Amino acid sequence: MSDDDQELGITESKSHNTGEWYAEVVQKAGLADYGPEGMSGFIVTRPRAYAVWERLQGFLDAKFKDTGVQNAYFPLFIPESYLEREKDIVEGFDPEVAWVTEAGNKELEERLAVRPTSESIITPYISQWVRSHRDLPLRVNQWCSVVRWEATETKPFFRTKEFLWQEGHTAHATSEDAWEETMTRLDQYESVYEDLLAMPVLKGQKPDHDKFPGADTTATVEALMPDGKSVQAGTSHHLGQSFAEAFDITYSDEDEEERLAHTTSWGLSWRALGALIMTHSDEQGLVLPPGVAPEQVAVVPIWQEDTKDEVLEYARGVADDLDDAGIRVELDDRDGRNPGFKFNEHELNGVPLRIEIGPHEVEDGELTLVHRPDGESVVEGRDGVVETVCDHFDEVYAKLYAAAEETLDGEVREADDRADILGTLGQHGGYVKAPWCGDEECEEPIKEPMAAEIVMVPFEDDDPLVETDHDETCAICDDDAERTAYFAKSY
Amino acid sequence: MSDDDQELGITESKSHNTGEWYAEVVQKAGLADYGPEGMSGFIVTRPRAYAVWERLQGFLDAKFKDTGVQNAYFPLFIPESYLEREKDIVEGFDPEVAWVTEAGNKELEERLAVRPTSESIITPYISQWVRSHRDLPLRVNQWCSVVRWEATETKPFFRTKEFLWQEGHTAHATSEDAWEETMTRLDQYESVYEDLLAMPVLKGQKPDHDKFPGADTTATVEALMPDGKSVQAGTSHHLGQSFAEAFDITYSDEDEEERLAHTTSWGLSWRALGALIMTHSDEQGLVLPPGVAPEQVAVVPIWQEDTKDEVLEYARGVADDLDDAGIRVELDDRDGRNPGFKFNEHELNGVPLRIEIGPHEVEDGELTLVHRPDGESVVEGRDGVVETVCDHFDEVYAKLYAAAEETLDGEVREADDRADILGTLGQHGGYVKAPWCGDEECEEPIKEPMAAEIVMVPFEDDDPLVETDHDETCAICDDDAERTAYFAKSY
Repeated sequence: MSDDDQELGITESKSHNTGEWYAEVVQKAGLADYGPEGMSGFIVTRPRAYAVWERLQGFLDAKFKDTGVQNAYFPLFIPESYLEREKDIVEGFDPEVAWVTEAGNKELEERLAVRPTSESIITPYISQWVRSHRDLPLRVNQWCSVVRWEATETKPFFRTKEFLWQEGHTAHATSEDAWEETMTRLDQYESVYEDLLAMPVLKGQKPDHDKFPGADTTATVEALMPDGKSVQAGTSHHLGQSFAEAFDITYSDEDEEERLAHTTSWGLSWRALGALIMTHSDEQGLVLPPGVAPEQVAVVPIWQEDTKDEVLEYARGVADDLDDAGIRVELDDRDGRNPGFKFNEHELNGVPLRIEIGPHEVEDGELTLVHRPDGESVVEGRDGVVETVCDHFDEVYAKLYAAAEETLDGEVREADDRADILGTLGQHGGYVKAPWCGDEECEEPIKEPMAAEIVMVPFEDDDPLVETDHDETCAICDDDAERTAYFAKSY
Repeated sequence: MSDDDQELGITESKSHNTGEWYAEVVQKAGLADYGPEGMSGFIVTRPRAYAVWERLQGFLDAKFKDTGVQNAYFPLFIPESYLEREKDIVEGFDPEVAWVTEAGNKELEERLAVRPTSESIITPYISQWVRSHRDLPLRVNQWCSVVRWEATETKPFFRTKEFLWQEGHTAHATSEDAWEETMTRLDQYESVYEDLLAMPVLKGQKPDHDKFPGADTTATVEALMPDGKSVQAGTSHHLGQSFAEAFDITYSDEDEEERLAHTTSWGLSWRALGALIMTHSDEQGLVLPPGVAPEQVAVVPIWQEDTKDEVLEYARGVADDLDDAGIRVELDDRDGRNPGFKFNEHELNGVPLRIEIGPHEVEDGELTLVHRPDGESVVEGRDGVVETVCDHFDEVYAKLYAAAEETLDGEVREADDRADILGTLGQHGGYVKAPWCGDEECEEPIKEPMAAEIVMVPFEDDDPLVETDHDETCAICDDDAERTAYFAKSY
């Protein structure tokens, strides 16, 4: 067994070599493989990771549908002439596009972009579907993959040339309605992280110089990673009227006047999986909150030859009860693997709760429950096992959330001049908040030496339309500071 | 209102101009739009059609998961060198491939195929994941789109250059296990049609000359369309060892001997939506069985000014009761549309059950239920509305199934020589079954004049491994007939 045992361990240190540790967890927990030769930057999403993605999809999709969103599916390709119709989009994405130039044994007359994002093909259809104010708001969403040919090093779920995501696209009568939409989706993204993935996030907007191409405002949720970097974890764009203008989305209002619509788009990608893995996992492997874990409970019977029958029967009863209640449970009754190996394997694979059952438990009508990740072990009665397990799920979730929240709280620091910002970022990483005038030039003195940037500007009172009125001066240029900027290194 | 009313009608005849009628239903019921200029052959799947696809997905995916299938996601692109590794695949698909040749502002060193099917990229990974007999069976499935650049005329959901589907890929220790897998999936496809879509299908195998490239056997479910043509409605391939050999899937058996695996693949596409729309819909528009209908019930209150309040309150109560029970119900309380318009609109959009509520219904504590498609109208009591509605769903499903079954039964005819086959096909369309020697050459005398082919060869006793022993001779060549062939025109 010792060879096998060694294979299961994560050898890299989470705190010292976060990148290598992450790659090892992804590989050893069977989450993803790298793409084939000639296709660096692509990954294969293996069943364990895909099952987490499906749970995230289910959670978010239900919220979308409860709030007026309908799913649809648009073509994978976008004709070059369509991509060019909104100038910011083409400037923003053209360098990263993969082009189909031959098909059906012929050169194509026009190159087709493999969608890097779908505004340019969805908006023309929205334009056809919207005629009157009665057609608004119009909301469509698609779950699909997009391709962006970035040359950076591959990091599964964080940096890949193809990634899975959802992209929502909406049209509204007024800018206020579009704002409400933008913030509704941002709040839903926050809920995915906080309520499902047990990760607190920061909410705000990107600085103007880092918006989505063509957007008026890009709102973002940002998550802190264990290496002190920030991840843009979901974005919701108020697109103003630029796309409505480029693709002619007009509607007749109640007085039969022709008006230009306001649009939004919003997306959350499998980067959420990457952030999830990064945040909670440890040197035993993957850690998952119960809500998204493909296997929520591993029941491990521990027997000697003379106790095997009774232990197995008892364990099977427990597993059956949980299964009947819809809990995702595995009875690990494999012969030829000792309990220690099984423990390690379930820990590696991110099973949130282990139930150990030996002759003592059988005799006393009890169960030993062990939490992932902290190994806390609790003896509970056999009766009411379903309720007990659900309570422990809540505890595991609460532990994960509390630990992530404590980390985040400790990693937001203040600074009020350039040296202080650089010094604090250099020493600690994390977020440094500082008063900021709003000018891109005042990011440069931080970005240039430190590769840190303004990742987020919080909303005042959680409302993007409230003007700030700080009695402060910009940490860089000493002009009036209209905003607070969060500086951080980012993915 | 009269202008609006006219807009809602289908003008083409289902029996005389089936193709035009279908295109009109697809467009007027808001199911799909055609792709943009420069992208003929592509369609936009609108929310009503996509919602049906989601229900089909949910139904089939649950069956997959209950029978050991795990979902995963593989790259969208396949390097040309991978596609070439299985010679039948490259010969079969190369003429239809869309190629990415430029990306990130550079020519690629190797062309990348946009997946036409994923055997060539999934099998190499299965090869890595399979080491021992304990890793078998291994089953992965993905829901995705594929691209096949066919030059034929576009027909939404039937013939499009990109289509949505699922593709399952499995590896097994023995050929028998692979056969069991092949048939399990075929049975699940049959269940999708029969139990969910209310469509009887025929089950069998493709003739050898019409198998999936590289397959030993292609099993198929075939559905009859109203124009007398057959649709290949789902296929399940026993791939033998050709892919295992090309991509080196070996495993060590219980005696530590190295063995070559046996693989299968199986797919069902959105063609199922096309077949569904074709089969049940009529000249009022879309018809859907309740199990997949995005809206299952439309509650239409019918009031005069003096009865409006009481009628609306009663109708709202009915809709709320249904909604609380998880039934997909819409209360159509729009002002400015008369009941006749609303009836037509819900019929066009394929709502299976309409509940009409006027002052009489309120007074008598009753409801008037109207079935789609036959317009049967039944008065029922208000109490127990949830159960009543579920009973009527069963009735609507049963009516749809019975009608489709009657049509199918009447469209399978027998013939025993060439003239008879040609005459029967020419006069009636549908299926003509005839004894067949198994030789492709004996399909030619039918295919050449009639454009009909052997779409299906039924299994003996539903078992592909049972040898047939007919005491008959081939309808074409008079050699011994090993099989019964179903001739039909097909999509």
